[in-house]
Amino acid sequence: MNETPSVSSTKRSTSAGAEEILGLYFPVLDHGFVSLVDYMGTDADIERAARVSYGAGTRQVSKTRGLIRYLRRHKHTTPSEMVELKFHCCMPIFIARQWIRHRTANVNEYSGRYSIMPDTFYRPTVEEVRKQSKANRQGGEERFEDESRTAAEFVKFLEDSEALYERYSKLTEAGVSRELARIGLPVSVYTQWYWKCDLHNLLHFLMLRADPHAQYEIRAYADVMLETVKRWVPLTYQAFEDYSRGGLQLSAQGLAVVKRLIAGEAVTQATSGMNAREWRELMASLGRTA
Amino acid sequence: MNETPSVSSTKRSTSAGAEEILGLYFPVLDHGFVSLVDYMGTDADIERAARVSYGAGTRQVSKTRGLIRYLRRHKHTTPSEMVELKFHCCMPIFIARQWIRHRTANVNEYSGRYSIMPDTFYRPTVEEVRKQSKANRQGGEERFEDESRTAAEFVKFLEDSEALYERYSKLTEAGVSRELARIGLPVSVYTQWYWKCDLHNLLHFLMLRADPHAQYEIRAYADVMLETVKRWVPLTYQAFEDYSRGGLQLSAQGLAVVKRLIAGEAVTQATSGMNAREWRELMASLGRTA
Amino acid sequence: MNETPSVSSTKRSTSAGAEEILGLYFPVLDHGFVSLVDYMGTDADIERAARVSYGAGTRQVSKTRGLIRYLRRHKHTTPSEMVELKFHCCMPIFIARQWIRHRTANVNEYSGRYSIMPDTFYRPTVEEVRKQSKANRQGGEERFEDESRTAAEFVKFLEDSEALYERYSKLTEAGVSRELARIGLPVSVYTQWYWKCDLHNLLHFLMLRADPHAQYEIRAYADVMLETVKRWVPLTYQAFEDYSRGGLQLSAQGLAVVKRLIAGEAVTQATSGMNAREWRELMASLGRTA
Amino acid sequence: MNETPSVSSTKRSTSAGAEEILGLYFPVLDHGFVSLVDYMGTDADIERAARVSYGAGTRQVSKTRGLIRYLRRHKHTTPSEMVELKFHCCMPIFIARQWIRHRTANVNEYSGRYSIMPDTFYRPTVEEVRKQSKANRQGGEERFEDESRTAAEFVKFLEDSEALYERYSKLTEAGVSRELARIGLPVSVYTQWYWKCDLHNLLHFLMLRADPHAQYEIRAYADVMLETVKRWVPLTYQAFEDYSRGGLQLSAQGLAVVKRLIAGEAVTQATSGMNAREWRELMASLGRTA
Repeated sequence: MNETPSVSSTKRSTSAGAEEILGLYFPVLDHGFVSLVDYMGTDADIERAARVSYGAGTRQVSKTRGLIRYLRRHKHTTPSEMVELKFHCCMPIFIARQWIRHRTANVNEYSGRYSIMPDTFYRPTVEEVRKQSKANRQGGEERFEDESRTAAEFVKFLEDSEALYERYSKLTEAGVSRELARIGLPVSVYTQWYWKCDLHNLLHFLMLRADPHAQYEIRAYADVMLETVKRWVPLTYQAFEDYSRGGLQLSAQGLAVVKRLIAGEAVTQATSGMNAREWRELMASLGRTA
Repeated sequence: MNETPSVSSTKRSTSAGAEEILGLYFPVLDHGFVSLVDYMGTDADIERAARVSYGAGTRQVSKTRGLIRYLRRHKHTTPSEMVELKFHCCMPIFIARQWIRHRTANVNEYSGRYSIMPDTFYRPTVEEVRKQSKANRQGGEERFEDESRTAAEFVKFLEDSEALYERYSKLTEAGVSRELARIGLPVSVYTQWYWKCDLHNLLHFLMLRADPHAQYEIRAYADVMLETVKRWVPLTYQAFEDYSRGGLQLSAQGLAVVKRLIAGEAVTQATSGMNAREWRELMASLGRTA
Repeated sequence: MNETPSVSSTKRSTSAGAEEILGLYFPVLDHGFVSLVDYMGTDADIERAARVSYGAGTRQVSKTRGLIRYLRRHKHTTPSEMVELKFHCCMPIFIARQWIRHRTANVNEYSGRYSIMPDTFYRPTVEEVRKQSKANRQGGEERFEDESRTAAEFVKFLEDSEALYERYSKLTEAGVSRELARIGLPVSVYTQWYWKCDLHNLLHFLMLRADPHAQYEIRAYADVMLETVKRWVPLTYQAFEDYSRGGLQLSAQGLAVVKRLIAGEAVTQATSGMNAREWRELMASLGRTA
Repeated sequence: MNETPSVSSTKRSTSAGAEEILGLYFPVLDHGFVSLVDYMGTDADIERAARVSYGAGTRQVSKTRGLIRYLRRHKHTTPSEMVELKFHCCMPIFIARQWIRHRTANVNEYSGRYSIMPDTFYRPTVEEVRKQSKANRQGGEERFEDESRTAAEFVKFLEDSEALYERYSKLTEAGVSRELARIGLPVSVYTQWYWKCDLHNLLHFLMLRADPHAQYEIRAYADVMLETVKRWVPLTYQAFEDYSRGGLQLSAQGLAVVKRLIAGEAVTQATSGMNAREWRELMASLGRTA
């Protein structure tokens, strides 16, 4: 470190996988999309940031791979903040509202104050309408049976909400301010934005949104973005699958149960120190019938 | 600093002005509200944070006032991050969407995935409907003349969008998942949240939202919150009015124009180096006819 | 939600455990300290934020406890951002440098540009000097044997670095600017700050710093802060111990190994799909000899 | 917006000015440096983010320029968050400590826990030693007269602090843990880091640090970074100079004074409603003798 280097790489590093999809629009839901519009850095830059202490130096892929796995295993997340990507996305407002809760990103959204909202709405087909889950207060995974009148009525309900668009359109032409006129449109209307995020925070987003607990419609976006990460930074993607998404977080009580099970002890919920729900979740994770 | 103190104040500091309104609900728009549910710190704590270098010590109000004004004048904003407040707010979704763009706050919002949305919608009266501005792409300040058919039609349009609520209600009873059923409701439906923010970031929010360029409906909330700040930290409030909201940011060109005007020179847009719009804005700020 | 409430609680909520230690100074290391100077909210306020959807309502402790545990188990962390605390801390500069890396906090630090640095330095005793670990590139846990010449020489080295203080002091008296004069002082010199953080981010800090991988000296601070959390929000503290600190994160490979072990299979590193280091760490966590 | 585009640009946008300096190391102070190692986006991408509402479209430079100036004038800062850059920097620890206070950046720093600190220290020449200012509690701009004994003694003091390095080096060789051994080194020792920041937050950093109130040594870094911005995004740079750095923030009182002066009124501090210091600062900004 005593000698100032005169030059490092004079080229921006390039990800072959990202280059293949740069600027392409991947459709999501009925009218939405996700497109990678820019990126900065690669797996190698994550390694480089981690090695700032040792100076640069050519490394084989296997060493990059090992270091990236080590970083994720030990939750050394700052090097993955050193690479960044930017998406152009189009999604219904009710999804945008969930998405925007991830605050460590930069956003420029289409504005219904400045511009006319588009005549595009998210509407599932009759077959796609989901029932309220009984077990799970938040989700809805189960479908209605074929030719359900309720599902058909729901789709009709959405059609009628969309039919308001024509009046919105006429009212803005008649001079009603755009910022006010739009408030009668349903939250199924599509909006769009540029969304920029570093890899660390993107993986956190994907951990929560490319997950069965997330609403189906945002998961559809997260799945496409996860595929983008796989192409862009394949070593980080694999480490993320192995150490974060594919793993299991045991509680102190869960760890104790696992130790007893390995020792061949018969453990029941009653002797586990866990409540019924936690016990059920643990048994499911371990592939056992509770 | 060499001796560890054994004790500082063993009481949380209290703002008399904040205590007066703590827990009260102030109505905003037709069905919304803002309520101060908690706060941490006072003007004195801002001073204390700034004086961490000098050790504590009793100070008269005039010294607190002088220091707080000095901090704001010189944009030393970190001491104002040391105090915090928490609101309970209820607002239409289209306002929540503008509000949430301020990322340096903590939020817990009512969830239409978990719970049934309320049957409450923002709807201006016929007299309150605003026209699209011609000068200003974003805003809408001008009202329609009396008995305008357009304004009345707009209110009818909102009524019809609200009428969808009954079908939303029946569909959720019939088993459609809440997370899906709600997407046919208009963005005028009310939601609510807890919102926590430090004073520095709150003032930034108020700078942008208690402002004529902000949409009228969010300004209605910002005005109530500004009044809360005035009661809670009166010295900071006054400094904010004097140095931030009540002042003027001159550009390099604007400063040059001001110097020439003071020197008695006749300056026109043509000789100002400013474009027509900037010139008009500067003249308006200086109380001159362009 | 259709009726605006007129009033909620008109008192700030109070934590009995926090009140007991408010304003007291707990010594850390040879000249440092940690003191809780203010706080906002309690376990009950975390529950309240989580229940914003259901309206307020009296709840028994057992329900608060259950909800708080549920939130932590499912990583619903936003309600714990709704409570906040503020510390007054004094620590050596080399510790302040590690601490400040946690960015989601507010800080006002003593300034060596404005004020004279104190004549206080961190210096371990000869018995406390630690050897460089061979296994672990970062840490240093092992002590030198009694009457080690190296340990004594190290302490003498620190004494000599501290002796520079007298010259610093004279040079500032002779007119050298404080911002420049201080640069000859060692990083063992004590500084101090106000540090404010929400509970979610504080727990993240404690997860990393009240940990055997952290440097001993910052751990000494984290331990005191963890004790503060225990007194302030006892239900959250217990959930944190059970689900975060006391648990175990299994990788996909680790989970597969655990399942095989429970099934009574003999697994070795060779058949585990894990590298030697990961295998060793897993066996240690499961209380087995590798 | 109704039709999903199939493709936008399939190339990352390139800044000619940034490409010229990418990877070059610019020396700062006696042993420090700044090097631009990567960037994402250009002036055109700021425009593109702002125009997300209107769809893409070829624009002449003059339109990009006009829009970028409009955004800055009206403090619409989110589009400038859409471009990012990454520096490799080497600076003394006392500067790193000021720099790190800017929290909205990503950092990977050389670690004295993992690695041996370099034998490189910042040491001004005798001619460069600055006196403590009397007017200004924080700064130090004035030099000592030639052959000042105090300045020479200060430089000798720094030399002696640096001489501790040899003992640090021997002690680490003798087995003292690196994390402990380093604490006797002075804060003038050089460290280095990767530092990544979006343009909006970088400009905020430069507003505060490329400023006469900042310590000379951090200004030296900020000046090089400002030059980098000028080459990378020249239109944004010019708008920043015109509307932020080169302008003047008038308080409410200051604005009133300016209006009276333009009206030809004789205003004195006594009749200005400003305190002596504010009055002096305003007169200086307007190029008048107070």
